[in-house]
Amino acid sequence: MTIQLYDLCGASKDLRFSPACWRTRMALEHKGLNYETVPTMFTDIPSIAGGGQRTVPVIEDGEQIVRESYDIAVYLERTYPDKPSLFDGEGGLQLSRFMHWWTGATVDAGIVKLVLADIHSILDQADQSYFRESREKRFGKALEEVQNQSDETLQAFRASLLPLRLALKKHDFLGGDAPIYADYCVFGSFQWARMVSDLTLLEGDDPVAQWFERCLDLFDGLGRKAKG
Amino acid sequence: MTIQLYDLCGASKDLRFSPACWRTRMALEHKGLNYETVPTMFTDIPSIAGGGQRTVPVIEDGEQIVRESYDIAVYLERTYPDKPSLFDGEGGLQLSRFMHWWTGATVDAGIVKLVLADIHSILDQADQSYFRESREKRFGKALEEVQNQSDETLQAFRASLLPLRLALKKHDFLGGDAPIYADYCVFGSFQWARMVSDLTLLEGDDPVAQWFERCLDLFDGLGRKAKG
Repeated sequence: MTIQLYDLCGASKDLRFSPACWRTRMALEHKGLNYETVPTMFTDIPSIAGGGQRTVPVIEDGEQIVRESYDIAVYLERTYPDKPSLFDGEGGLQLSRFMHWWTGATVDAGIVKLVLADIHSILDQADQSYFRESREKRFGKALEEVQNQSDETLQAFRASLLPLRLALKKHDFLGGDAPIYADYCVFGSFQWARMVSDLTLLEGDDPVAQWFERCLDLFDGLGRKAKG
Repeated sequence: MTIQLYDLCGASKDLRFSPACWRTRMALEHKGLNYETVPTMFTDIPSIAGGGQRTVPVIEDGEQIVRESYDIAVYLERTYPDKPSLFDGEGGLQLSRFMHWWTGATVDAGIVKLVLADIHSILDQADQSYFRESREKRFGKALEEVQNQSDETLQAFRASLLPLRLALKKHDFLGGDAPIYADYCVFGSFQWARMVSDLTLLEGDDPVAQWFERCLDLFDGLGRKAKG
């Protein structure tokens, strides 16, 4: 059985940039499961997987439809317990919930202000209209006013990563010697920025940057190869 | 064998307020180990456990001397694998390292600005001199200038807890249905504030406040009873 992953794409179907979809893709790789990605635009989402979806990732695993990146990871762990563990135990599964929310509230919230207009620029025309309208409503101003790549904004973003930096200072991954789902969770956000923008988010000697490079090398360089 | 925990105290030896010492104490309780606390003032630290210590907690377990709250938790887990697990697996142990740093960089860093002068007020006279000198050097201003309990500071602190709030919204503990070390790690910080100050840190309907109340009830109300 091949799992279908509905994976957000840009105007180019090969441009896969959603942080949450990257989490799921890395989780599928880690589990060593057969899967294929279905390129999906924002405006396709309501019609995928039988309809009624509002966000991606969504996976179809036979009859099962599962959505939300953390819930998908838990589903994969429970459904395929004999495959390599995403969490290394129940404590890891529970704390990955915190990691999910920390990533959203800190990393994603920081990155979105740095690249919001860049995201718009890689979308298909229909998606561009949807994206501009929905995001300008959410932020209360134009995409180009939200996006701020000033040195001050970058410094504040880098400072917000302090706990990640300290946790990675003496370890290759959040999982220790090897990556676990928490690594993929945070990786997705940096990969998102990398896929849509040429902005240098991190300084080269930052342990976070070095960890991200290690993540780009995983699974035969899957993340690295995704950007030509 | 009874483990000795060197536990920071105020002018009253019964007033135990160190966030890191509370982490260790809750971990010892969780493990169900025999231990006793040794009330220790800041100015006692250099002479405890054979000398050369700079911070507490320090534990003595027979010949073993272990320091630093996270390292102590890992030591207890590895040394007493048959006792209830603090991490529920290796993934939990690894992600607790991130939780440790997140707590320090976010929760402790926020609380210290709210209660720094309150901490001073509960110390013994010799400790007061040490504390004022070392902390005023660290912050570059008077304790009373650092401490700011304005509504704006409180709101910013509460906002910084968003990932914790979201992770606890549908779960009793960071560990899920039952507490694990990550809960004790964050608990220690809120207990620190509670022990030294009457400031209301959290609004009553905040899931974080409700989780903290559950933590105060653990181990026959150990944390709650610590403050008369």
